[in-house]
Amino acid sequence: MKVDGKDMRPIWFDSISKTVKVIDQRMLPHKLVVAELKTVDDVIDAIKKMFVRGAPLIGATGAFGVYNALVDLQQKQKCLSQHKKNSDACSEKISDAALSDKDRADKKACDDYLKQECQRIKDARPTAVNLAWGVNRVLDVALRYEQYDKKLMAVLEEACQIVEEEAENCRLIGEHGCHLIEDISRKKGGAPVNILTHCNAGWLATVEYGTATAPMYTAFDRGIDIHVWVDETRPLNQGARLTAWELGKHGIKHTVITDNAGGHLMQHGMVDIVIVGTDRTTRTGDVANKIGTYLKALAANDNSVPFYVALPSSTFDWSLKDGVKDIPIEERGPDEIRYVQGIDDQGNLISVLVPPQQSHAANHAFDVTPSRLVTGFITERGICEASEKAIISLFPEHV
Amino acid sequence: MKVDGKDMRPIWFDSISKTVKVIDQRMLPHKLVVAELKTVDDVIDAIKKMFVRGAPLIGATGAFGVYNALVDLQQKQKCLSQHKKNSDACSEKISDAALSDKDRADKKACDDYLKQECQRIKDARPTAVNLAWGVNRVLDVALRYEQYDKKLMAVLEEACQIVEEEAENCRLIGEHGCHLIEDISRKKGGAPVNILTHCNAGWLATVEYGTATAPMYTAFDRGIDIHVWVDETRPLNQGARLTAWELGKHGIKHTVITDNAGGHLMQHGMVDIVIVGTDRTTRTGDVANKIGTYLKALAANDNSVPFYVALPSSTFDWSLKDGVKDIPIEERGPDEIRYVQGIDDQGNLISVLVPPQQSHAANHAFDVTPSRLVTGFITERGICEASEKAIISLFPEHV
Repeated sequence: MKVDGKDMRPIWFDSISKTVKVIDQRMLPHKLVVAELKTVDDVIDAIKKMFVRGAPLIGATGAFGVYNALVDLQQKQKCLSQHKKNSDACSEKISDAALSDKDRADKKACDDYLKQECQRIKDARPTAVNLAWGVNRVLDVALRYEQYDKKLMAVLEEACQIVEEEAENCRLIGEHGCHLIEDISRKKGGAPVNILTHCNAGWLATVEYGTATAPMYTAFDRGIDIHVWVDETRPLNQGARLTAWELGKHGIKHTVITDNAGGHLMQHGMVDIVIVGTDRTTRTGDVANKIGTYLKALAANDNSVPFYVALPSSTFDWSLKDGVKDIPIEERGPDEIRYVQGIDDQGNLISVLVPPQQSHAANHAFDVTPSRLVTGFITERGICEASEKAIISLFPEHV
Repeated sequence: MKVDGKDMRPIWFDSISKTVKVIDQRMLPHKLVVAELKTVDDVIDAIKKMFVRGAPLIGATGAFGVYNALVDLQQKQKCLSQHKKNSDACSEKISDAALSDKDRADKKACDDYLKQECQRIKDARPTAVNLAWGVNRVLDVALRYEQYDKKLMAVLEEACQIVEEEAENCRLIGEHGCHLIEDISRKKGGAPVNILTHCNAGWLATVEYGTATAPMYTAFDRGIDIHVWVDETRPLNQGARLTAWELGKHGIKHTVITDNAGGHLMQHGMVDIVIVGTDRTTRTGDVANKIGTYLKALAANDNSVPFYVALPSSTFDWSLKDGVKDIPIEERGPDEIRYVQGIDDQGNLISVLVPPQQSHAANHAFDVTPSRLVTGFITERGICEASEKAIISLFPEHV
């Protein structure tokens, strides 16, 4: 997407430095900082500390993490240098049959190291299913190769492929979702369509277009008059900081509101449609998303406002049936609630303490919206109702 | 209530300086600042800028505002000094019959001034019904007297009487509401009762005990094990700043959570009861309260968690039947959302800007929870269901 006229993505592989680069989103909207992720630890740090966030972007970052694991491996020379003379399992392609017992042990050690590092990456955040999905997909490729350079090349290609697929998925989500907005616009005789969104499921959370925002960008680009209510999304204010920034940079009319305001707006007919993203959705249509999404879904339901969830199919967890019971909800540090980050009157990015120093805080990062409150899903393959039957009919390979 | 062992109220009449004093609540929890309200403008400022907030406290402050109007009047000598020789209507008791046309005109001018000032005070904030109630009650007394000193004395007495009545009402709310908590505690075999509250309906919002917090203080003082989930309550964070401070000073276990979290906690059985205050409640039981209350009521309803509203009868608006349609909802300045106040690492109280400088914000301060979502009301006369019939049977004088 464009940032001050320049094409930008929240993650990319820099072919000159041969490193993964990301926007450090903690500094937005006040500073645009690019961070370099050179090691697995850098990747884990970027995910845990939320340089990157948003299910699809976490998946993409995790995918590049497998590449970094291979780079780490080379540098640590765990497999390579110890057995240079023996041209060990990692550095040269040897058919399994030709491997000596020692070589076989080395290959196993190398693969084990990779699996172990992948597990560490997958553990960085528990809720988003895309992280495990992205890491596993690249790991599978890695395990297919034995020669280090080929392995490295294949892993990088696969990670880049994931990024491109996610971008294309989001483009398609935009196509399908735009029809919903178009319909409302037509019914309103071209008056502005008021869309409410929670958190940031924008291009900053994916790669391009976003998930929840993709229909908005598509509608805007096609000249449909839209206005977006942006939930500030406490505690980390991803709505106020990131969604507002994204939409503003693209020229889309938007208004920041507190997370408390949506119900009132819906009661008074000021919201035509709610579109949010998701970090993990069960095959039955229960939606884990940023804490507070469930409250907006309840309000939408109470006021007959359509409530849509936009997601690429990588965000479905095909193994789960009961979201409230089965999706692990991450509990993050209390200081994310107690301290609020912004710029002071000198333009310095600082944090201020809001509650009394002695008061505790609890920081559940996600909640689960039961499928009964979801009007439908906007996916890369089209729109479907929030039921197992409808979801599976769109993705029959997961029957 | 106690603050560091010292008795304190959020408003009092200082008999030495003969002025109204209030805690400037904007500085809490980090600084305890007392402000002196000498004029009507001071009172309006304190209400508008939220030195004082909370329906009962706004009512009490407005009541003292009538006293200040009389003081202003004297100082401006609008009635007094211009007509000293004539011992005008304000300065001496003259029977209406004995008034000359000129005297009658002066008395009318004086009363008109008072009424006009009272209207200014009532206009300071539109949603809380207590403000008009408190001002009108004292104004009625003022209009009964003609001699200035007697008028002044009667007005002060009436304002102080309102304060004492509110304190007693809150004590009774605590008595009645405590039974609800006691019942839950018994059912849980003495395990901690988890209470969720939104905003600050504590002693800082009233005079003593609070409304929503009164049952908590009573239960705690009686040795019932309770724990309070404190919604931070954006945009002004009255929960994180004021409720957490109050409860902490009293020694009550509490945890600050984002406004987004309540639904998740209720889904997982972590909330036994919700108790909130209200700024205005219709005779049919529709509840205007801090923005976001409606969302918590929806979540409580969806999870069969009892949802109670605690209020003195002065908060009922007996003239209204449809809360969503008829209660005016104040829209406050956008900077209350855009800037967040707290202390920096040097302990300085400062504000930081969170969203992009260019992004708009909308700040609806209240919402209305329909009576169908309210389990019951806790009033000074007891507990009743949220229906006109049940409310009127408790307050038959408003039939």
